[in-house]
Amino acid sequence: MPSTVFDPPALESGTLRVTPLGGLGEIGRNMTVFEYGGKLLVVDCGVLFPEEHQPGVDLILPDFEPIKHRLDDVVAVVLTHGHEDHIGAVPYLLKLKADIPLIGSGLTLALVEAKLKEHRIKPYTLTVKEGEHEQVGPFDLEFVAVNHSIPDALAVAITTPAGVALATGDFKMDQLPLDGRLTDLRAFARLGEAGVDLFLVDSTNADVPGFTALERSIGPVLDQVIGKAPRRVIVASFSSHVHRVQQVLDAAAAHGRRVALLGRSMLRNMTIAEDLGYLHVPEGILIDYKKARDLPDDKIVYMSTGSQGEPMAVLSRMANNDHEIEPGPGDTVILASSLIPGNENAVYRVIDGLTKLGATVVHKGNAKVHVSGHAAAGELLYCYNILKPKNVLPVHGEYRHLIANAKLAQDTGVPADRTIIGENGTVIDLRDGLARVVGQLDLGFVYVDGSTVGEITDADLKDRRTLGEEGFISVIVVIDSATGRVITGPEIHARGFAEDDRVFDAVKPKIAAALAEAAQSGVRDTHALSQVVRRTIGRWVNQSLRRRPMIIPLVIEA
Amino acid sequence: MPSTVFDPPALESGTLRVTPLGGLGEIGRNMTVFEYGGKLLVVDCGVLFPEEHQPGVDLILPDFEPIKHRLDDVVAVVLTHGHEDHIGAVPYLLKLKADIPLIGSGLTLALVEAKLKEHRIKPYTLTVKEGEHEQVGPFDLEFVAVNHSIPDALAVAITTPAGVALATGDFKMDQLPLDGRLTDLRAFARLGEAGVDLFLVDSTNADVPGFTALERSIGPVLDQVIGKAPRRVIVASFSSHVHRVQQVLDAAAAHGRRVALLGRSMLRNMTIAEDLGYLHVPEGILIDYKKARDLPDDKIVYMSTGSQGEPMAVLSRMANNDHEIEPGPGDTVILASSLIPGNENAVYRVIDGLTKLGATVVHKGNAKVHVSGHAAAGELLYCYNILKPKNVLPVHGEYRHLIANAKLAQDTGVPADRTIIGENGTVIDLRDGLARVVGQLDLGFVYVDGSTVGEITDADLKDRRTLGEEGFISVIVVIDSATGRVITGPEIHARGFAEDDRVFDAVKPKIAAALAEAAQSGVRDTHALSQVVRRTIGRWVNQSLRRRPMIIPLVIEA
Repeated sequence: MPSTVFDPPALESGTLRVTPLGGLGEIGRNMTVFEYGGKLLVVDCGVLFPEEHQPGVDLILPDFEPIKHRLDDVVAVVLTHGHEDHIGAVPYLLKLKADIPLIGSGLTLALVEAKLKEHRIKPYTLTVKEGEHEQVGPFDLEFVAVNHSIPDALAVAITTPAGVALATGDFKMDQLPLDGRLTDLRAFARLGEAGVDLFLVDSTNADVPGFTALERSIGPVLDQVIGKAPRRVIVASFSSHVHRVQQVLDAAAAHGRRVALLGRSMLRNMTIAEDLGYLHVPEGILIDYKKARDLPDDKIVYMSTGSQGEPMAVLSRMANNDHEIEPGPGDTVILASSLIPGNENAVYRVIDGLTKLGATVVHKGNAKVHVSGHAAAGELLYCYNILKPKNVLPVHGEYRHLIANAKLAQDTGVPADRTIIGENGTVIDLRDGLARVVGQLDLGFVYVDGSTVGEITDADLKDRRTLGEEGFISVIVVIDSATGRVITGPEIHARGFAEDDRVFDAVKPKIAAALAEAAQSGVRDTHALSQVVRRTIGRWVNQSLRRRPMIIPLVIEA
Repeated sequence: MPSTVFDPPALESGTLRVTPLGGLGEIGRNMTVFEYGGKLLVVDCGVLFPEEHQPGVDLILPDFEPIKHRLDDVVAVVLTHGHEDHIGAVPYLLKLKADIPLIGSGLTLALVEAKLKEHRIKPYTLTVKEGEHEQVGPFDLEFVAVNHSIPDALAVAITTPAGVALATGDFKMDQLPLDGRLTDLRAFARLGEAGVDLFLVDSTNADVPGFTALERSIGPVLDQVIGKAPRRVIVASFSSHVHRVQQVLDAAAAHGRRVALLGRSMLRNMTIAEDLGYLHVPEGILIDYKKARDLPDDKIVYMSTGSQGEPMAVLSRMANNDHEIEPGPGDTVILASSLIPGNENAVYRVIDGLTKLGATVVHKGNAKVHVSGHAAAGELLYCYNILKPKNVLPVHGEYRHLIANAKLAQDTGVPADRTIIGENGTVIDLRDGLARVVGQLDLGFVYVDGSTVGEITDADLKDRRTLGEEGFISVIVVIDSATGRVITGPEIHARGFAEDDRVFDAVKPKIAAALAEAAQSGVRDTHALSQVVRRTIGRWVNQSLRRRPMIIPLVIEA
């Protein structure tokens, strides 16, 4: 819950209202709403991946609450690029209203359409390119090429009579990108000269000094590692990192290896990327992974997902020896990816597991097999200096990243009171070149868990954490409703304990005694009796086993 | 002498001719001539400092030969900034024709005017600022702010009907410069969008990967070193590095020390910089160095020249214990400067000398007390990508720097045949967006030695090297012109030998005998007899003393 919640005033005419619903104070579920003249424009609609303290959660969505009742006013959703943290929540938004138009580049729309297909939604789309303008309701949109770890990313300049807002999406400024598609600093310069009133800028690497290394510095390292690998090679990366997969394909081809793609999203995304011409697959290099078994070990590269230690992804299952490709001595596993904050434990667990199996694990910590897709501090300074924005809203980052980014803006001369450190739900009004915080909405986390959306609460997650960490004990007692006498039980079942259930035999008489005592005092209410059971076994487990499991007492009248 | 010399054709109308006279294949004496429609525009006119193999030389000038007979056609000299390697030869050019107008920024012109005053020349000047345009003859000039290790540096875009040439001068792209004056990438973007036909670009750091560190990273280091110094502090830097001197003044003020400026050029330049508002001298901090002796050792900072090991500069004299400020134990000497290639020996000699005297020497090699003023490879890539020049001429660099710079241009998509690796005297014609080498002039080095300009030749320098390294021996013999008999001598004088002159007593009879033998053979010619003397003593010195000095035999008839 945000620090201070207060309602914004009604939006004045001639004012642009900007409300980030996600991505501030977190890396993920990026989504920002722009409002002008009664119309809403949404930029990005992504998911956040759960951390370890959110067990069982598949995805976390932005809280759509502020726009749920105004979906008819949404003129479009602009998607800056095809990463999950920018497009992953689109299906959940379109489930509320399917005909909201989606605007994005060719690859971005292809990726979101494939995702929507799984949800049986066919969206209205408008494909745009860098340099193009589109008028959508009161919003004049100009799209600007930016360079990121997925092809075809766009920044968007949003012009209304209230001024110009420029949202970078995710970006970096690789000056020798593999596809030659630079972040268009000429356009930034032109927009800056004309005047940018509000700059919404990627903060992910704002606290990383200097400059992100060139993407092309990775290729030779991959080539060397793959060239020297004695047996099988397994490369894990993001399933949307077309350029990294390209580098792996090229390195494999150079060393006479074939490549098997593993993981549903990897297969889907690379098929799309190849169809659209973003991925150039060397003739005959791909092989079905089932057929790959027949190849000699030194003739195969497996390209898989799971670089973030996601438990259900191929790599984690390999590390747990729970996948038909069983890594072993002589095999080389390359984690060609960044380590998203929060995933450290999971990733190191995977590295440990693979190492124990005998595989050599090459990762960012011991070789240059990944560069970030986000602009580091040095690059952001270039942006600020070229744009000279009047107001800055750092987005896409944990709090420390937002602060670091604001500091960079200030270093280049943006006044401190024009750099806004916002939270999700911060309402910012832009008018006459001045951006001001006018409200703070109370937004929550919306959890997707299996087929449910928004039904799991934070309390549920607390239970899950307790269950996961401490296990649970259920105690079933059947009592005579008239006398309160125990007819059956207590039967005790426990999960998450090393001990045999028989350890609980010692507490059963205590429970029976406590219930008898309660009955003698005239207690008949099953809820009250449940509490007696809970207290009795709780105290005992605590003292005897030194644990605080979840306790589920069930007192049934018969 | 250039590899291949060939004359350019007569200049066609509608064509811009570009001829660098200095700065290619060397770090220094930058000068480029632009010709259009019969008029010449000169950009920069600097000196090269002599290396160790050019003993006794004060300065090396560009060879003015190609423009000497056309000085009336020179419409102006544009000076990009106030460093010696860009303005140092102006007095020598104006001595040929004093009314050639000089164009530059306020600080640049102030520095060149001070220099000209010493030569008793009062120039015609035109002060310009970034963003301004000037039409000079057929050349439309636009001045663009660039960031360098001296304030007020400018790049110049030169437009003629033949196209646009952009000369950067020296520059880097510090994104947080101390004076807030950035290299104007917005202007670069605008020029690039309009089309830059020929890009003349600083190559000094083209082979340095990454990005030059921020100038403001130096301040805290200077502050720390000065704060911790137990006794006197002596800082040596370039006498034009206003920002570095500013940092030293600030650090001294922070630690209650006063500052004495040492060296004529340091005093002159800082007076100019303060008068023009580029240097902000804390109240009462400066002190005459003679009065500084009365201060406690821990209350003084000496700011001196000589960071390149120049033998006559204050620092070298201190290192040789040949200056009234005698550094000793507890004193701290900071070399807050780069090490210009070629000066290594001299600089390390100074460091050794100071260390032997007991001083602690802090320099680039052991602390971050200097950052370069030139764009490294990463910065140059930004330039190329923003400008997208049609043709590139790397300037200001040794051959390896020019090659590295051309490679960067090619990495960003400039075709290899549009990146010209030139030499001094390479004649390049620009027309219809295509730059071609059309000639190669034969240019030399012009040495300034005391009051002579261009009189010292390379042969003289060879002599000087021999003298310096091996010393010399003069042998005087007076013979009877009729008989060839030795009347007086041989008298032998030597310099540069450890040995006493009496060591030569052993060879005197041999010389006399050789002359007698020659006389008996009827040799009377004094030149021939001189050669006899040279050979005799040369062979003896060679065998006995293992040296090859310069030998000056003088046979006089009486």
